[in-house]
Amino acid sequence: MQQLINSLILKNFGNPILNRLDDSAVLPLKTGNKRLAFTTDSFVVNPVFFPGGDIGTLAVCGTVNDLSMVGARPLFLSAGVIIEEGFPLEQLKRIILSMKKTMRAAGVRIVCGDTKVVNKGNCDKIFINTAGIGIIDEGENIGSANARPGDAVIISGTVGEHGIAILSRREGLRFKTQLKSDCAPLNRLVGGMLKSFPGAVHVMRDPTRGGTATALNEIAELSNVGIEVDEERIPVTNKVRGACELLGIDPLYLPCEGRLLAFVDSRKAEAIVRRMRKIAPGRDAAIIGRVIAGHRKMVYLHTLSGSDRILDIPIQDQMPRIC
Amino acid sequence: MQQLINSLILKNFGNPILNRLDDSAVLPLKTGNKRLAFTTDSFVVNPVFFPGGDIGTLAVCGTVNDLSMVGARPLFLSAGVIIEEGFPLEQLKRIILSMKKTMRAAGVRIVCGDTKVVNKGNCDKIFINTAGIGIIDEGENIGSANARPGDAVIISGTVGEHGIAILSRREGLRFKTQLKSDCAPLNRLVGGMLKSFPGAVHVMRDPTRGGTATALNEIAELSNVGIEVDEERIPVTNKVRGACELLGIDPLYLPCEGRLLAFVDSRKAEAIVRRMRKIAPGRDAAIIGRVIAGHRKMVYLHTLSGSDRILDIPIQDQMPRIC
Repeated sequence: MQQLINSLILKNFGNPILNRLDDSAVLPLKTGNKRLAFTTDSFVVNPVFFPGGDIGTLAVCGTVNDLSMVGARPLFLSAGVIIEEGFPLEQLKRIILSMKKTMRAAGVRIVCGDTKVVNKGNCDKIFINTAGIGIIDEGENIGSANARPGDAVIISGTVGEHGIAILSRREGLRFKTQLKSDCAPLNRLVGGMLKSFPGAVHVMRDPTRGGTATALNEIAELSNVGIEVDEERIPVTNKVRGACELLGIDPLYLPCEGRLLAFVDSRKAEAIVRRMRKIAPGRDAAIIGRVIAGHRKMVYLHTLSGSDRILDIPIQDQMPRIC
Repeated sequence: MQQLINSLILKNFGNPILNRLDDSAVLPLKTGNKRLAFTTDSFVVNPVFFPGGDIGTLAVCGTVNDLSMVGARPLFLSAGVIIEEGFPLEQLKRIILSMKKTMRAAGVRIVCGDTKVVNKGNCDKIFINTAGIGIIDEGENIGSANARPGDAVIISGTVGEHGIAILSRREGLRFKTQLKSDCAPLNRLVGGMLKSFPGAVHVMRDPTRGGTATALNEIAELSNVGIEVDEERIPVTNKVRGACELLGIDPLYLPCEGRLLAFVDSRKAEAIVRRMRKIAPGRDAAIIGRVIAGHRKMVYLHTLSGSDRILDIPIQDQMPRIC
């Protein structure tokens, strides 16, 4: 089994760096004065396959996107796969092909990896860890502590699709039209933003676990600022809105896997949004709020009904294994 | 639980890079003309605690050692932890402290990480993935394809302790004297070798899964050479030899987690071994064989009984979850 898996992986992911099969990959990378970004995530999503993707799509997008959020160009990934004995090889092949397709879209390569097969019952089907390395161009300084009063808050698209796709599949819900996960690599979108508006982006974060509400709160906390958001400006599809009402969930707490929040120089915000709308996953980009000097570490929502309320972090994560 | 774990990890692993809590770590690294090494491994060892270490010790040593095997100085690690709901927090603390202690010994830091808690029964206690980044000094070209006829084969110490420590714990065996895992970071040993003998080391590999026999076969295959090894020169403690006889196992197939094989310029082999013996995990270093031009892709063992036999790779891995 172990050898079968290894050969399957090598056949699909093979490249001159990976094929050397040394204990570490040696990267053909001269960084000069550029900084490196490094990140990791484990993916344990249940179900493994869902409308719009699978655990393999997520494992590549998640790490590509985390690198993109600090302004890095993602280059190299590692993959650590833990498989339950008896997991169908046919399904593993589908996952590997999803990873391959997503890597091609993002322009990244897996250069090192590891596979462990554990006895039946010792893990639930398959877990995938990816780590990634990217390069940050000189002149960019993007970080969650860099939001400044006056910054405009942009979301790159509609929220909640990934969360609803997983939950509806898990709960066996059927809707007239299928709800697909939004999972997508964001590096080309980010590349376009940074190339056209160098230095104008102060913060980026992808609203994954805990959704948009949690990501905004984390930025308010790390930047020590207040954030105001207008609910009516946050793009939500009718499908997601309907499903959320049915399930009693706020779409702002649903994870996205192909969306980003950007805090940008307000003078350039409109132009940045226009640029984002030209690149596929940014089609529905919108300015949704602003950074204020007061109400530090708090996020205020101007609701559709006209009232204001604090948008806080949920006390407990209600959605295990959503990514 | 999730938040408790995150704060526990931050408290123990905290450093200025990790503490920024961005989606990726931004590394203060100028590589100039030096190459980067990148590797990953998932650790699923059962039992989680064993004589001489635990899953945390292994997770740090494994990746530090994989980086060292291509001649890199390990610098930064990532950690992806998957925890089964209900895993005792007390045990998690012990594991975190083991990681901290081992990182200090190796001089590396965790700069990014991720924790997932899965429902009871969805994983067995705890799995840890680490990825790592290191820098390779100019002038070194170490790789598993670089063994040359005439090279001397060195092992850095006694073989089999890690495998026996795990197996004896798992099978509930008790020996008069405790058998401890050999797990240890090898980067200082490797650093000493490369500094004193630049360019003289052609191949390094740590004999983990599949043990010394498997690592030698992989090198014979990747370098397209033959390898001869003298059984009587391979250091094995009496304790391990006794336990192996009891269990019907060949110590050459037992994994080590703090040993390395080095293929070196034969004219410098004696001096390299003397240097290795001065650095703790290399105390029992010994020349055990040589590379030959014939018998390509084969490993020959001159046995203690005076006969010769092919040392091949076991058809199946008989030891799941040994690391």
